[in-house]
Amino acid sequence: MEMAQYGRTPQGGVNRQALSTEDAMARRVLVTWAELLGLTVGTDVVGNLFMRLQGTNPEAAPVVTGSHIDSQPTGGRFDGVYGVLAGLEAIQAIREAGIVPKRSLELAVWMNEEGSRFAPGMMGSSVFSGSRTLDSVLSVIDAQGISVGQALEEIRNEFPDIPLWPLERRLHAYIEAHIEQGPVLEREGITIGVVTGIQGKRTFRVSVSGEEAHAGTAARSERRDALLAAVELIQAIKALCEDDEDLVKFTVGRLDVKPNAPSVVPAEAVFSIDLRHPDSSKLQSLGDQLLDLCAYEYERCAVSIQELSAAPSLEFPDSIRSLIRRTAEDQSISCMDILSKAGHDARYLHYVCDTGMIFIPCKDGISHNEAESATERDLADGARVLVGVLLGLST
Amino acid sequence: MEMAQYGRTPQGGVNRQALSTEDAMARRVLVTWAELLGLTVGTDVVGNLFMRLQGTNPEAAPVVTGSHIDSQPTGGRFDGVYGVLAGLEAIQAIREAGIVPKRSLELAVWMNEEGSRFAPGMMGSSVFSGSRTLDSVLSVIDAQGISVGQALEEIRNEFPDIPLWPLERRLHAYIEAHIEQGPVLEREGITIGVVTGIQGKRTFRVSVSGEEAHAGTAARSERRDALLAAVELIQAIKALCEDDEDLVKFTVGRLDVKPNAPSVVPAEAVFSIDLRHPDSSKLQSLGDQLLDLCAYEYERCAVSIQELSAAPSLEFPDSIRSLIRRTAEDQSISCMDILSKAGHDARYLHYVCDTGMIFIPCKDGISHNEAESATERDLADGARVLVGVLLGLST
Repeated sequence: MEMAQYGRTPQGGVNRQALSTEDAMARRVLVTWAELLGLTVGTDVVGNLFMRLQGTNPEAAPVVTGSHIDSQPTGGRFDGVYGVLAGLEAIQAIREAGIVPKRSLELAVWMNEEGSRFAPGMMGSSVFSGSRTLDSVLSVIDAQGISVGQALEEIRNEFPDIPLWPLERRLHAYIEAHIEQGPVLEREGITIGVVTGIQGKRTFRVSVSGEEAHAGTAARSERRDALLAAVELIQAIKALCEDDEDLVKFTVGRLDVKPNAPSVVPAEAVFSIDLRHPDSSKLQSLGDQLLDLCAYEYERCAVSIQELSAAPSLEFPDSIRSLIRRTAEDQSISCMDILSKAGHDARYLHYVCDTGMIFIPCKDGISHNEAESATERDLADGARVLVGVLLGLST
Repeated sequence: MEMAQYGRTPQGGVNRQALSTEDAMARRVLVTWAELLGLTVGTDVVGNLFMRLQGTNPEAAPVVTGSHIDSQPTGGRFDGVYGVLAGLEAIQAIREAGIVPKRSLELAVWMNEEGSRFAPGMMGSSVFSGSRTLDSVLSVIDAQGISVGQALEEIRNEFPDIPLWPLERRLHAYIEAHIEQGPVLEREGITIGVVTGIQGKRTFRVSVSGEEAHAGTAARSERRDALLAAVELIQAIKALCEDDEDLVKFTVGRLDVKPNAPSVVPAEAVFSIDLRHPDSSKLQSLGDQLLDLCAYEYERCAVSIQELSAAPSLEFPDSIRSLIRRTAEDQSISCMDILSKAGHDARYLHYVCDTGMIFIPCKDGISHNEAESATERDLADGARVLVGVLLGLST
């Protein structure tokens, strides 16, 4: 709740976008808490933040937990930040119990998971894991024209004393705790979701180019109305994405019109597409059909589409899933297997080390929303299971 | 071309929105020019600007000409400002010819015709003519939350020496020169359009309310996606507005999505509707059917619609139209009758005095676009006809 003060919104949510002033304030308080626990703090060139409890064998690759502290513009108090604070809590509990693990334990805060200020998201974890290059993200700009590179420099200047750790490091394992962001655990009355994998996702940016004209004089037959073209295209994609099983997730979350004036026929409409499906092959074919739909003109307007990211569905290794399950059972905390329908930094860490995720229920399954909530009991139980899993991996 | 410097855009257009800094600069230069001509300058509480050449009978109601100097965000160099500068040129020519008309001649610059910064447009002329109350426009705010009242006060402070004239004044006649904003005159090879009337227009603001949700987790059947709902509604209205004669003008010029983030299901979509038709009864019935379409839910989202303005089609009086026609013929300048498909301040002046409009061709009929253009010859011919019409009305 203290962390939710940084970027709090009048409706009780959080607006703490990547590398913003609010993000810097939240990093400041986290670093303070970590230093009080005697953790070693480091960062890297892409703005990820690390807090390390030294193990008895400092040469061994560390066991890492964490998540992100950036939020959607009208986000909640739990998405991302729960994984970071549960990790801090777990490390504190281990330290206060007098346990010194063999492997170092690290708490990671990945830069820009949400991708709302700078698209696409999961920037820090994807660059850390080598899935994207540093150069490819530095030039990304926000709506004000500020680049990731500039914003990173400002954050660096805020924390001149935090040393720069190398971007390429070997990790032993990565565990991320997170709210489910869906209704399943709550509905089933189960506390811990043992995440089996992450559903695949492809994201696109579509630009429709028409021609500006006067709303009172230009005849319909002569118009090239970019907004009406976008509307027609979105309807077509929506029809493509309707499945009986209700598994396809198709979202146009962002749409910007130019010049966006009531009596001017729009010259340009740019929109985002977020497409997900648990079955990688289905995701692939749907995305390809979507690309096909964009090969036509709509309302005499040209369409161009750019694929921003493509991630197939993935499965976390059995060893990690079993460890989470056993740890919950040992503590008599209920658990069940669950697929993550949302993307997480764990997606990228999965490429470089054994990775798993622990879900806890959230109220009514609501997320990316200021009303996001979770019970103290569930939050604490998630951290309890995390303690056991981290110890299991580090000793 | 000098006036086009105030608010000029890199693409050669103009962005000079109502009561902006650019508007203030343009007013400054106009006032300077008017004072050099010995005109008396005045303003009123709604920010209209007047420049008067005193007649021999100062008690007689004045003959007024003019238009507006505000533009669309990516507007051109001629829409509105041509009528103001042609009026200034006409008054200068009359003065330099040593003619002192019986009635005073006034050049009017109406505040906020375009309605792009503050909606709806034609604010100055509608309040001047008593069609809207002053109070109803003062509280209108722009995208930054600045009200018309505040912006008016700033403009007043810029020009403390200009006296405030009463809002309610009797006018003898009003003549507005303007580019056609359509392709007819150019296509027919005619210089002067004798405007028969103005096509009717109804404008609306539609709000669609859904629920914010996570793009990866919320199932289609559970979503209340405000953007998909808006898309469906816009498609339905578009279908309603398709006529074989291609007379209906239907434009969604503005659409704003909240929170407008790629991986969040939109909670709100607000869009503008601009609906026009030369036949008032057809406009009425189409607008009413459109209201009916908004009485339903789309994608489980609630829709609310507000009518912002409703203006029936109108005809200018024969006396003024004949005077314009005769004046053009006397000068051997070609002319033809033409309907104005765009709205103009003349719409509101028409309610309080004999009113008419003079159109001249514009390149390719393009308007509300940075590429807007017109020839020197046509611009000058329009001013020549205006001189004759003003003299005909003032003596």
